[in-house]
Amino acid sequence: MKQHLNKDILQSKKRTFLELPKDFFERLASEELNAVARALSLLESDSTKYEKDRGQLLEWIYGQQIQKARRIGITGSPGVGKSSFIEAFGQMICEEGFKVAVLSIDPSSAVSGGSILGDQTRMTELSKRKNAYIRPSPSSNILGGVAGATRESIALFEALSYDYILIETVGVGQSETAVAQMTDLFLLLLLPGAGDSLQGIKRGVVEMADIIAVNKADGDRKQLALETKRAYRQAVQLFPPKRSGWETSLHTISSQERTGISTLLTEIGAYFNFVSDNGYLSKNRSHQAMDWFDSSLNRSFLEWFSQYPGLNSLVAQQKTAVSESKKAPYLAAKEVIQWLDGQIKKSTKSD
Amino acid sequence: MKQHLNKDILQSKKRTFLELPKDFFERLASEELNAVARALSLLESDSTKYEKDRGQLLEWIYGQQIQKARRIGITGSPGVGKSSFIEAFGQMICEEGFKVAVLSIDPSSAVSGGSILGDQTRMTELSKRKNAYIRPSPSSNILGGVAGATRESIALFEALSYDYILIETVGVGQSETAVAQMTDLFLLLLLPGAGDSLQGIKRGVVEMADIIAVNKADGDRKQLALETKRAYRQAVQLFPPKRSGWETSLHTISSQERTGISTLLTEIGAYFNFVSDNGYLSKNRSHQAMDWFDSSLNRSFLEWFSQYPGLNSLVAQQKTAVSESKKAPYLAAKEVIQWLDGQIKKSTKSD
Repeated sequence: MKQHLNKDILQSKKRTFLELPKDFFERLASEELNAVARALSLLESDSTKYEKDRGQLLEWIYGQQIQKARRIGITGSPGVGKSSFIEAFGQMICEEGFKVAVLSIDPSSAVSGGSILGDQTRMTELSKRKNAYIRPSPSSNILGGVAGATRESIALFEALSYDYILIETVGVGQSETAVAQMTDLFLLLLLPGAGDSLQGIKRGVVEMADIIAVNKADGDRKQLALETKRAYRQAVQLFPPKRSGWETSLHTISSQERTGISTLLTEIGAYFNFVSDNGYLSKNRSHQAMDWFDSSLNRSFLEWFSQYPGLNSLVAQQKTAVSESKKAPYLAAKEVIQWLDGQIKKSTKSD
Repeated sequence: MKQHLNKDILQSKKRTFLELPKDFFERLASEELNAVARALSLLESDSTKYEKDRGQLLEWIYGQQIQKARRIGITGSPGVGKSSFIEAFGQMICEEGFKVAVLSIDPSSAVSGGSILGDQTRMTELSKRKNAYIRPSPSSNILGGVAGATRESIALFEALSYDYILIETVGVGQSETAVAQMTDLFLLLLLPGAGDSLQGIKRGVVEMADIIAVNKADGDRKQLALETKRAYRQAVQLFPPKRSGWETSLHTISSQERTGISTLLTEIGAYFNFVSDNGYLSKNRSHQAMDWFDSSLNRSFLEWFSQYPGLNSLVAQQKTAVSESKKAPYLAAKEVIQWLDGQIKKSTKSD
């Protein structure tokens, strides 16, 4: 079973600066487990101490120019059986000779003190496979945001020639939108039985799904699963067409009995052929990269500004006024900029 | 019929600076048409020439502390009959003694050279009413963005004690999301007949709708409209619950025969009671205001930065590299910030 780098190593106070060893990128390219784990930890680190290393790593990653991976987002309510599905699905991918990485975005990890997703102990068989790499969700406390770290982790696994990258998330809060913005295909898992299984899912996710799979279609639930599929098929037909031109397809599967999974994998292949052929795949990826750049720029601005003490309290003050509708958001924002401009002029004079 | 201030007045080259007349706010408070039109033009103006006036106006608006208006977003494919619906719906509101403003967000106005929405010539009866004010979509070329101008126009009409503010949009592109982010209730109009009427609507909008009304339920189409309503009711039941706790309700209406409109108005009242009672209304509004502040701050940053020549070309250059996945978005953003930081240090030295 794979060992992941202990976070303590990176956060140890004894090491004030961490230079990447000379042979690091060779070791990374040959997928030495320690090197991969260290790279992931670097991407998830928000410490300025590792900024230089992170930069080097990102340059290496983007220098590889390998982009063959299929990026698949997987969501579903807690209890829908995401881990057992990924366990079965991932193994099937491995058996076909492909490499698969499993990443997670778990917005609950800050609350629970640890990720409930992407835990390799939940996927014992898959985690033993040579061709599989499972990484739990980074702590949602990290400055750069879980989404940013996950996007860069995706890029890492692409650079390492992975064929499938699965990003799982629990269907609560903003995480599905984040996952949809970094993947090519969005897979929604449902339980047999109408709308009950959607208690934990955010609005809009059903319409966003490219493929819907009703899981646990085994034993007594087989018939109910088929009915659920039929009901959703009707519902989906009422929806606006997708920008990709793809029509949402629906399936029943059983992770336990391993039925329907192979058909699902074939369907995923059909989807990727479809969006490759019509150009949507690359157009969408470049669109996603631009959005990411924009949000990186915004975040970098904020980080840069944080060097001006007083800014945070000013922003907090303005936010209070805005939320109580005592001040126009536009004017509140203007005041922040004016303050900042004043600071810079002051520092100019004192120079 | 109301006269709106000609844009030429504001853009005339003869007036290099426009100071608001002393009695402007008195005239605005008493809703003099010229004053209202001038206020709207100011909110839609992105010229720095009027920045001081805009600031004064926004301070006046937010100083009124009147927030009784029901902000309702209305969307539907072209041809669904939005204007005839608003014509009928708006008149009913007026007849109940309430004041109604109709605003529009029309992403196509840049292309068509003029707004196809919110045009009072499409709503001849409503535009004659004393209690109604109709404002066409601002040009989508304005710097601050159509959404920003519309949000501030909403605030203006609230300050003027309006009871209903209807924001209509065609269901294409990003505009529905923008409208949903500035309204309390989202109303989707459909045509009788299954999914065909949704060709122009973006994914996610059906799930976003608080109320769905099948329009043109008259004559031969009455039966089909009922079937359409039934089909969508089934579909909607499969969806995740809304954060507001409200269950999407469905209606058939005829703007032409004026049937169902009064029931719809009652239902809208029920919705507002529901979200007032459970606290969602105010929570959602304060959430919306915060989001608006964040996006204003981002835009203000960018405007502020635009004083540094060279920045735009650097950003464009980085964007190209990012879209071709030759560079990590994070590093590309970092480079922009570093450049900027260098510029400021340079200007510090030359001082």
